[in-house]
Amino acid sequence: MSNSSGDLILTERDGAVATVILNRAEKLNALNREMWAGVGGAFRALDGDETIRCVILRGAGEKAMGPGADIAEFAEARSNPEQAAEYGGLMHAAMHAIRGCRHPTVAQIHGLCVGGALELALACDIRICGEGSRFGIPVNRLGLVMAHPEIEALVGLVGRSAALEILYEGRVFGAAEARDKGLVNRVVADDRVAEEARAAARRIADGAPLVNRWHKKFVDRILAGGELSAEEAAEGFACFDTGDFKEGVRAFLVKDKPDFKGE
Amino acid sequence: MSNSSGDLILTERDGAVATVILNRAEKLNALNREMWAGVGGAFRALDGDETIRCVILRGAGEKAMGPGADIAEFAEARSNPEQAAEYGGLMHAAMHAIRGCRHPTVAQIHGLCVGGALELALACDIRICGEGSRFGIPVNRLGLVMAHPEIEALVGLVGRSAALEILYEGRVFGAAEARDKGLVNRVVADDRVAEEARAAARRIADGAPLVNRWHKKFVDRILAGGELSAEEAAEGFACFDTGDFKEGVRAFLVKDKPDFKGE
Amino acid sequence: MSNSSGDLILTERDGAVATVILNRAEKLNALNREMWAGVGGAFRALDGDETIRCVILRGAGEKAMGPGADIAEFAEARSNPEQAAEYGGLMHAAMHAIRGCRHPTVAQIHGLCVGGALELALACDIRICGEGSRFGIPVNRLGLVMAHPEIEALVGLVGRSAALEILYEGRVFGAAEARDKGLVNRVVADDRVAEEARAAARRIADGAPLVNRWHKKFVDRILAGGELSAEEAAEGFACFDTGDFKEGVRAFLVKDKPDFKGE
Repeated sequence: MSNSSGDLILTERDGAVATVILNRAEKLNALNREMWAGVGGAFRALDGDETIRCVILRGAGEKAMGPGADIAEFAEARSNPEQAAEYGGLMHAAMHAIRGCRHPTVAQIHGLCVGGALELALACDIRICGEGSRFGIPVNRLGLVMAHPEIEALVGLVGRSAALEILYEGRVFGAAEARDKGLVNRVVADDRVAEEARAAARRIADGAPLVNRWHKKFVDRILAGGELSAEEAAEGFACFDTGDFKEGVRAFLVKDKPDFKGE
Repeated sequence: MSNSSGDLILTERDGAVATVILNRAEKLNALNREMWAGVGGAFRALDGDETIRCVILRGAGEKAMGPGADIAEFAEARSNPEQAAEYGGLMHAAMHAIRGCRHPTVAQIHGLCVGGALELALACDIRICGEGSRFGIPVNRLGLVMAHPEIEALVGLVGRSAALEILYEGRVFGAAEARDKGLVNRVVADDRVAEEARAAARRIADGAPLVNRWHKKFVDRILAGGELSAEEAAEGFACFDTGDFKEGVRAFLVKDKPDFKGE
Repeated sequence: MSNSSGDLILTERDGAVATVILNRAEKLNALNREMWAGVGGAFRALDGDETIRCVILRGAGEKAMGPGADIAEFAEARSNPEQAAEYGGLMHAAMHAIRGCRHPTVAQIHGLCVGGALELALACDIRICGEGSRFGIPVNRLGLVMAHPEIEALVGLVGRSAALEILYEGRVFGAAEARDKGLVNRVVADDRVAEEARAAARRIADGAPLVNRWHKKFVDRILAGGELSAEEAAEGFACFDTGDFKEGVRAFLVKDKPDFKGE
């Protein structure tokens, strides 16, 4: 276990799976400046680590992923546009570090997941939560906007209408509605969230890691729009030159479990 | 209450919430030229009114939002491409006036909501309907197309496949299927539709109005694609200069209900 | 009945409805090079046939749409990037021929629909499956990627997060989850799949065929983005010059069933 940002952001390793923890359970993991910076730093560090196959993001404890940004800190750190731009820079860098991480990412959501905590979860590729989880972005009660980079993942995931519904009404709603809206991929019993997130990470880590990274890159390339360059199109066939492809076909033909090396 | 277009389109006010009514109950609110023009005019007028915080669109009575365009009028008003282009101009202006309205918009859907009535509902930000509501766009039974501007909101909301399914098969289907397809945000008991629309409008109007307008602007800016200008990015922090932000944080810290002024 | 590619791809006609069959039931319709080429050829031929109003794609038998590409063929036909690019060219041409077909297309899915079979189904406009159908794209178990053109329809249909979930975890999952993810339009009892696909094709063929083609063209034009040319915008009113429009309005006004000629 290593500490990226004091003790407020922890990174744990279990084989090829890393877990980043928002570690401020006594405040339900409310996010302060140091934590925004720490989350960004943790994901940038993991991005450069070729031995990683999946990253889980979670809050400490099972009460909450988090209630959002720590409002107690606003008076000194987010009270005018200049401070807000600096604070926003830390938030956006954290979201971009998660979203841009080359490895598959899974948000393991226990309990409350509101505001900034939900924004971090939205930056992950997949979201798994418990039946008792609760979601919302009630920032218009604070007179506060989500800036463009914060809204982007929300709109991409649930579309214009559900995004506006969430932002306009400011309701805090349950897991069933979150699943109906497409906000989460999977809802399980509250005491099975950690187990399901681990099982998903295990399935992901069992696949060829280069393939997972290519798929993430290709999906994001398609969403960026425009014509592919010849080089980009050719990358769609690069897997056929890997040892992992030979191993995968070999294992399939003899009904063996493949042992991928990431090369 | 004011009449924007004879008595066929009514606009009512209840505090910060306006309601635009398709008022032709004896024809189930079938839309004629005068009504298309009137709806557009009503939303353009409301767009310029800074005291509005939410606009509801509904049909008169609780039998139907509407069966679509009034086909009895086609022989004289929509019988060749030239007339159709003029008629289409009125339709598209109405949809653009709703979609482009700076205020949050809610479609309150009672009963049948087909063709042109559904197109108007799709131009709203949020749709609430009753369990007995019925939806569809059976224009291929008329040999009639939805032109590009009419299809746009449908595709944006439900995606390519569900849009084509609706347009190809021409089925009229129920509220559960509409919700599964993402065509409506919320389905409630038929006798609770008006109440739920009012409650949603109330929640929206209780939030900071500038924040709601910014969120709508930001969501549409993201969907338009491309890089943000420096000025656009800076607008993401403009809320920190508002009195409403100070009021929101004050109220939060002392657990008070905020009193937003829209400034 | 005509054979487009030996007996491995069949095209049947029933009035205005054509059915393309992946005809290799003894291998559960596993796709080989000849079949990829044959599917593409079959859809290109149907695209040019003005008398067609709907095309159904299915596998032979009711056990499987297909398990994907025939891996037994990989050693000789897909074992390095050069071969893979050639093989991929056949796959992508098949998907483009389905996606670009001017007629409405319906995938009739019985049983297993995995990998390449699912990719062909995704290229269709509408998907109908049985309660016992199973779906997945477990290519990372093979060390194999889906190239950009193969991923495109998946991302367009289910969005970034569900697409990555499917590709990363490699799970094979049931019809209910497929419907929740938006992967299929409709799930019916297994013994009703063929009947429901025929009923959908009949409803489609009963509508004005030019209208269905225009709708497909308009939806894809909207998804391509950018401003419409004046000529494109004008095409939105071309239907008012057709005999089918006159027939549709006539039939509506006298409550008759319209008899559309496609002109």
